[in-house]
Amino acid sequence: MSCSYKSAKGFLFSATKAGLKKSGNLDLALIFSKSKASAAAVFTKNAVKAAPIYISMENVKNGHCQAVIVNSGNANAATGEPGLEDAQKMAFYAAQCLNLDASDVVVASTGVIGERLNIQKIKDVLPNLCHSVEECKIDEFSRAIMTTDTFPKLAQRTIMLGEKEVIISGVAKGSGMIMPNMATMLGFIMTDAEVDHRYLNVILKERVSATFNRVTVDGDTSTNDMVLLMANGESGAKKVLPDTHEAELFCNALHEVMYDLSVMLAKDGEGATKLIKVITKGAKSESDAENVSRAVANSPLVKTAFFGEDANVGRLMMALGNADAKIYPNEIDIYINDILIVKSSLVAGDVRGENVTNALKGKEISVTVDLNVGQAMAEILTCDFSYDYVKINSEYTT
Amino acid sequence: MSCSYKSAKGFLFSATKAGLKKSGNLDLALIFSKSKASAAAVFTKNAVKAAPIYISMENVKNGHCQAVIVNSGNANAATGEPGLEDAQKMAFYAAQCLNLDASDVVVASTGVIGERLNIQKIKDVLPNLCHSVEECKIDEFSRAIMTTDTFPKLAQRTIMLGEKEVIISGVAKGSGMIMPNMATMLGFIMTDAEVDHRYLNVILKERVSATFNRVTVDGDTSTNDMVLLMANGESGAKKVLPDTHEAELFCNALHEVMYDLSVMLAKDGEGATKLIKVITKGAKSESDAENVSRAVANSPLVKTAFFGEDANVGRLMMALGNADAKIYPNEIDIYINDILIVKSSLVAGDVRGENVTNALKGKEISVTVDLNVGQAMAEILTCDFSYDYVKINSEYTT
Repeated sequence: MSCSYKSAKGFLFSATKAGLKKSGNLDLALIFSKSKASAAAVFTKNAVKAAPIYISMENVKNGHCQAVIVNSGNANAATGEPGLEDAQKMAFYAAQCLNLDASDVVVASTGVIGERLNIQKIKDVLPNLCHSVEECKIDEFSRAIMTTDTFPKLAQRTIMLGEKEVIISGVAKGSGMIMPNMATMLGFIMTDAEVDHRYLNVILKERVSATFNRVTVDGDTSTNDMVLLMANGESGAKKVLPDTHEAELFCNALHEVMYDLSVMLAKDGEGATKLIKVITKGAKSESDAENVSRAVANSPLVKTAFFGEDANVGRLMMALGNADAKIYPNEIDIYINDILIVKSSLVAGDVRGENVTNALKGKEISVTVDLNVGQAMAEILTCDFSYDYVKINSEYTT
Repeated sequence: MSCSYKSAKGFLFSATKAGLKKSGNLDLALIFSKSKASAAAVFTKNAVKAAPIYISMENVKNGHCQAVIVNSGNANAATGEPGLEDAQKMAFYAAQCLNLDASDVVVASTGVIGERLNIQKIKDVLPNLCHSVEECKIDEFSRAIMTTDTFPKLAQRTIMLGEKEVIISGVAKGSGMIMPNMATMLGFIMTDAEVDHRYLNVILKERVSATFNRVTVDGDTSTNDMVLLMANGESGAKKVLPDTHEAELFCNALHEVMYDLSVMLAKDGEGATKLIKVITKGAKSESDAENVSRAVANSPLVKTAFFGEDANVGRLMMALGNADAKIYPNEIDIYINDILIVKSSLVAGDVRGENVTNALKGKEISVTVDLNVGQAMAEILTCDFSYDYVKINSEYTT
């Protein structure tokens, strides 16, 4: 079978309209792996966790799963004991029609918080959803998990491990509440490589902290976040073992898939008109670099200035000065793209000039802060802060 | 002499237009105490400090000062060595025309960052400014220190210490970059009580952490913040000594002045349409309570929901779950004003009902989170997040 969007072998997808979204759009979706897959996952660090998070934490504990059921339109969060039962039922009904054990099903929800999930609506459409799984429906899947997202988020890499082609496919959703530590985002990464679940777990944690956890839209972290990585071995390539050339290839490709998705998340920040990459270099440690990038990327004053296409040196200096990091307040250089705008903490050149103005008109802008203290660097992905952020979030009930 | 706005005895004020603001409004202002005053101050914790901060830190070190010179329209921040010289000159010229030592003059600036201060313009108008000081001009002073503020901020309390009337007058400015640890705000508190500068220092730090540092608008902290407390003893009341009935009266009145100013700062948050008081009670410790209140008050998703007059239980739960505090995720109660909207972490009653809707339409809203873990409480003052916040900050160059 040939799909317009080829994904990792042995993974099938489907999506349907259960009536959970007021819009009537796709809102229930399924991933099914032909064979049981190794699985690793990371979950929200928010103390208030949604019901499906508890169920999924339990179900991936043994390092395996075979299906994922996701609904959008309702987060099943702040729903107490009945909510937990609903999430359990969601796994159970999906397992039933796929002929699996409920403990092999991961559950995810995203949408309005504080309202009971209509489990009957899900039960009604599940048989049809289970029976219509196809290799080619990853695109439908990616659209069914959207909430305020303005575009579906898919990324993929193909590598050769020995003679065999190995594919890593990724799908994500998210646009508001995006912050470190898994903000309202769902990410599902599937590969047909064979990887032991313990090693998968190590790789996932490492890559999440370097990609998804470095996206920030508004500093808020959701109750429902999850990134799941499944490896079903259907490629037939030999097992990926730690500290091998294959592991390096695999990890690099996985990183690229996750980075691509992260860029899409930042670009699709609620109301965003620009992607902003905040790079801090010359830091004493990577965590210092990360703190500085994060302080700049989280500052509403910096973000509104980018929306206004203003090279606001003052706000950049103010924001980085708030970071928990070693800095010499008089030794800071700042660049917009490749244009030096601050040299040794003083405004350099014409920040209102044509070069800077043109750079700020772009859809992708990088801000590079050189602390001139050490050698470490880190990048944080974010977006600007527009009228539409306020509009979306004052008119939409999460 | 009788003023429409009576202030602490022995303090004189004046304000003028030096031409630092593009608008042509008042932008240079002076406080002069007839006698040398005990002084205590707190300054921004931002690593990038404006030039006047360094000069003022030095000049209050000995616990005394006699005058304050403030300009608006230019922050004299990120201006390097020349900026430091400008701030020093500002103190020097003011001292010269007041016949003081430069080390008895405190300097403050607020406005655009990264541009040199036009010190000549200040020098030109200083003689006139010095010679026109009057008891009654505290109102003019309060207007001259405004930037994006929409109203001047003045507060006052009068108490009797023994037979003597003692007045505490306070003036503040600030509306954006307002956050813990002294965001872009300037506060000047004057009293005619007699207080030793060491004790003054203790009282000020204590009261700042319970008032100004509990205001947050956008989570950003400025380079120029300062709160100065001056006590000149001109009331003739006997000295306020620690652990006395007089100290208690004095501290309470000081707290009230600072709290009133804090409420005004939150109300005047950039683009604000509502004052939001976030109270957390039933916490294990005061710092837990503060962290929870702060997490809720800093969440752009919560703040846009209030702008939209939406009792968004989901975002409140999400925001408090992000706080660094001991919570039982299933034991949380939340009130809007006095209306219970969440009981044991579940939506209680009709959050879209008339009572809640009317409460949300008000100009002042309190959100009370009861963690049901302990006895401690803390309040954070903030405002909602509107289109105008984005407008002000994308179109205005700080």
